[in-house]
Amino acid sequence: MILSPSFERLVTAFNRFPGIGKKSAQRLAWHLISEDKSFARELANIITETTELFCMCDWCNMLSETNPCPICSSSDRNDDQLCVVESSADVIIIENMNEYNGKYFVLGHLLSPIDGFGPEQIHIAKLLANIATSRPKELILALKPSAEGEATIHYLSEVMADKALSITRLSTGIPFGGDLEYSSLHTLSNAWKRRYTV
Amino acid sequence: MILSPSFERLVTAFNRFPGIGKKSAQRLAWHLISEDKSFARELANIITETTELFCMCDWCNMLSETNPCPICSSSDRNDDQLCVVESSADVIIIENMNEYNGKYFVLGHLLSPIDGFGPEQIHIAKLLANIATSRPKELILALKPSAEGEATIHYLSEVMADKALSITRLSTGIPFGGDLEYSSLHTLSNAWKRRYTV
Repeated sequence: MILSPSFERLVTAFNRFPGIGKKSAQRLAWHLISEDKSFARELANIITETTELFCMCDWCNMLSETNPCPICSSSDRNDDQLCVVESSADVIIIENMNEYNGKYFVLGHLLSPIDGFGPEQIHIAKLLANIATSRPKELILALKPSAEGEATIHYLSEVMADKALSITRLSTGIPFGGDLEYSSLHTLSNAWKRRYTV
Repeated sequence: MILSPSFERLVTAFNRFPGIGKKSAQRLAWHLISEDKSFARELANIITETTELFCMCDWCNMLSETNPCPICSSSDRNDDQLCVVESSADVIIIENMNEYNGKYFVLGHLLSPIDGFGPEQIHIAKLLANIATSRPKELILALKPSAEGEATIHYLSEVMADKALSITRLSTGIPFGGDLEYSSLHTLSNAWKRRYTV
């Protein structure tokens, strides 16, 4: 039996989300059509209404209902530290840590020329303008240690080399609760090289 | 920073899907508000339109755009075998196997009195009426071997004990490609007891 085109259309729509493969998309679609129709109508309304509310902060690129965003417009946050992250979701993760009171800059993507994300797409000119105005003392590159993350960190540190600011990145190593046995060789070898005196 | 109520509303809506936890729901919500607004509008439309199209087959409970569903109304399918499944999604999985040409009956839920799913909620009366009319020779209980699945299999085989039909269930054991090392003790012990001559 072939699934109906309208069902396939729903599956394809869910399949466009990151991390939602074909099987998960089918599961979501089945759930939607098995539930009470009011759930689907409510979900559709929430999707339209919420997405209409959000815009990109002119200052830091954070997705927010206000422009500038609450962090950029807050007088409680200091300009001495500027934390560069990949996405708005990362801002929330760092905020939940409750240890940082500086500002943010959201790149939107990591550098990946092969996928069409060059310096312009990750808003380098805007970041430089932001730094020229806010004059932070430390630029924290809170980017993931993947190939693209490393390339972005390398690129940013080169571009900022002549600025009078300290450029830092998050520590890499074995995660707490992680097993040496299940760590990749690359992670282990990096943690070995970066070992420190206890 | 606290996330906005409208964003939380979107996260809560996604969180209502099975298999979508709080973190995945947040990821979907971030993706939606970062994408072009036309994607959100399109998704909302697809959700409303598709769910409106589907109804439950009066005969087998399968979710379908027609009533009776394409399988119940097909003259190519034989009435000798009736396959009882938990959900409409399971019908598609079995159809994709391309080895079965009988009919289906969708319970909608497994028996789980503690969660409010008793014989009435899993449509037992309808299943009995269906059997009385279609008179299958074999009832295939294609239910998963979980606590609820086992309870449902046990219950159905008791209820059908006086019928002139053979009641079967899917084989249980180590899955192909599965490691003995990663099998649960219960799976292993069951496979041991059900071992067969090669």
